[in-house]
Amino acid sequence: MFPDSVPQRIAVLGAGSWGTTFAKVLADAGRDVVLWARRESVAESIRDRRENEQYLPGVLLPAGVEADTDFDRALDGADAVALAVPSQSLRENMGVFRDSLPPDVPLISLAKGVEIGTGLRMSEVIARVGHLDPARIVVLSGPNLAVEIAAGRPTATALACTDHDRAVAVQHACATPYFRPFTITDVVGAEIAGTGKNVIALACGISDGLGLGLNTTASLITRGLHEVTRLGEALGAVPATFAGLSGLGDLVATCSSPLSRNRTLGRRLAEGLGLDAALAAGGGQVAEGVVSCRSVRDLAHRHRVDMPITEAVYRVCYQHLPPTAMIDFMMDQPHSPE
Amino acid sequence: MFPDSVPQRIAVLGAGSWGTTFAKVLADAGRDVVLWARRESVAESIRDRRENEQYLPGVLLPAGVEADTDFDRALDGADAVALAVPSQSLRENMGVFRDSLPPDVPLISLAKGVEIGTGLRMSEVIARVGHLDPARIVVLSGPNLAVEIAAGRPTATALACTDHDRAVAVQHACATPYFRPFTITDVVGAEIAGTGKNVIALACGISDGLGLGLNTTASLITRGLHEVTRLGEALGAVPATFAGLSGLGDLVATCSSPLSRNRTLGRRLAEGLGLDAALAAGGGQVAEGVVSCRSVRDLAHRHRVDMPITEAVYRVCYQHLPPTAMIDFMMDQPHSPE
Repeated sequence: MFPDSVPQRIAVLGAGSWGTTFAKVLADAGRDVVLWARRESVAESIRDRRENEQYLPGVLLPAGVEADTDFDRALDGADAVALAVPSQSLRENMGVFRDSLPPDVPLISLAKGVEIGTGLRMSEVIARVGHLDPARIVVLSGPNLAVEIAAGRPTATALACTDHDRAVAVQHACATPYFRPFTITDVVGAEIAGTGKNVIALACGISDGLGLGLNTTASLITRGLHEVTRLGEALGAVPATFAGLSGLGDLVATCSSPLSRNRTLGRRLAEGLGLDAALAAGGGQVAEGVVSCRSVRDLAHRHRVDMPITEAVYRVCYQHLPPTAMIDFMMDQPHSPE
Repeated sequence: MFPDSVPQRIAVLGAGSWGTTFAKVLADAGRDVVLWARRESVAESIRDRRENEQYLPGVLLPAGVEADTDFDRALDGADAVALAVPSQSLRENMGVFRDSLPPDVPLISLAKGVEIGTGLRMSEVIARVGHLDPARIVVLSGPNLAVEIAAGRPTATALACTDHDRAVAVQHACATPYFRPFTITDVVGAEIAGTGKNVIALACGISDGLGLGLNTTASLITRGLHEVTRLGEALGAVPATFAGLSGLGDLVATCSSPLSRNRTLGRRLAEGLGLDAALAAGGGQVAEGVVSCRSVRDLAHRHRVDMPITEAVYRVCYQHLPPTAMIDFMMDQPHSPE
């Protein structure tokens, strides 16, 4: 059954590696895509050479992807909009995009995270700043390392929307032989899982740097997902989401990736560098786990959820807890049921 | 709270790498351990050189581990028994051990699998052949690669027993600073998870051999665990078990291990070797996934559970399905909720 309302013309706002990759997926799925880039050099590279040389080098973009630096033009006539700007600048960008967004069309959120201070999830930021009905927002989240998808390697993902029909419409809009979307209705779960995984990936990076092996990593992933699931439940999410593609799937892909920033930063912390030195060694690139351990810990305190791994990662980052003590933190809890 | 009934003297039957490792864990936890080895050369190596040179070379065994080739002597005075013989020979061994097992003591099952033909889980084989109350059996299952535990690297595990107090007694008996056991009551879930993971690990090995990347692996792990969970639920298990240490934890450790037999066999199958040739290339060592995909598929048919990944692995192994078609099998399902 093919729904009537499958979007045909889609604007992707943000031409980083993930936005560009998702634009390619949509075009491969048969959609007309306009990719908005902030910088003219990026738009020009795509227009003239069919390649985003800056953020997705080596990947030929299909003819169905146009590039534009004028977001009003990009949004004109769009019957769906994908938001692919960085989490940290989502609020500011939504303030700018707000008045140009076409009414009623689905908004596909590719951003992950919980805002420091407000504790808002990204879809909440989009809805509040954009004065939008939350049922218009479809959160995409899964085991989606951009470079692999751009290379056409098979993966699955989850599309979360409280309005099931809207998720189904987007599902049909972005399905390709290498990209298989599933629908769920648990937006809270998808977003909390997507944020919590950064913290666990950072913990796995630290464990890695300490030379602790695969059992330790698997235990951290399992117990970490367990505590993130408990937080999600306290916020109204469904446990099954955390066992799914936007939970377990995304987490395993992130924790396995040797290129992940969280993992690299964790290894540097394990070597004894303080947070500032470890971040500086990364050329100033922010590993999301450093931000997420603060916002997730805040949420945990607010909702009285015990999250020992998140707490330990936070203390390693911000309170000079020695990385080896992170493992003691995990191992020294009283004997208990799982 | 330390229970009264913590076993102090424990017989471990089977001196392969996992049995020997678990004997070391128990001794490090302060127990007196007698490790039964079938072969005198293995017992001698342990007695004379404190090392199981054949199955766990390079690991010094603590003084608390005695070795014996006489199982009557090993079982004499034991207040708990760990069964560490291979799954394929568990039925036969239980027939031999049966009359020597001390009454009422907990039996810790380290074996995983579902018997071909009967569809019985290992704890069911133990209970039936041993004429034992199933509530005496504690199933140990988690992210437990033996060599890493033997090296003292931290991990967690699950102890499943329908009698919670018995699981708690065993928990206290085997907890060390590097080995953290949690208790659960879902024996069915622990055993089905432990069997199903071999099939998924084989699928991941095939994907690996096809050069498909981390998103694909993460998707196979997630969708694979999903179908194994559905099978478990049909058999009366609890979904949370599959998201726990004996499900997700064991699965992630197994699928990450480059040394895993399932993974190696999967890669050979992906290279186009037929099953017999692929097994022969492995020196005749049996990858458990080859057996488990048969027994799990049988159970799935019997209980009418749809398991597309298991079905595809089975067909690659036994019906000459080309390995690339396994991925199509996963990707070509109709659009659906997760």
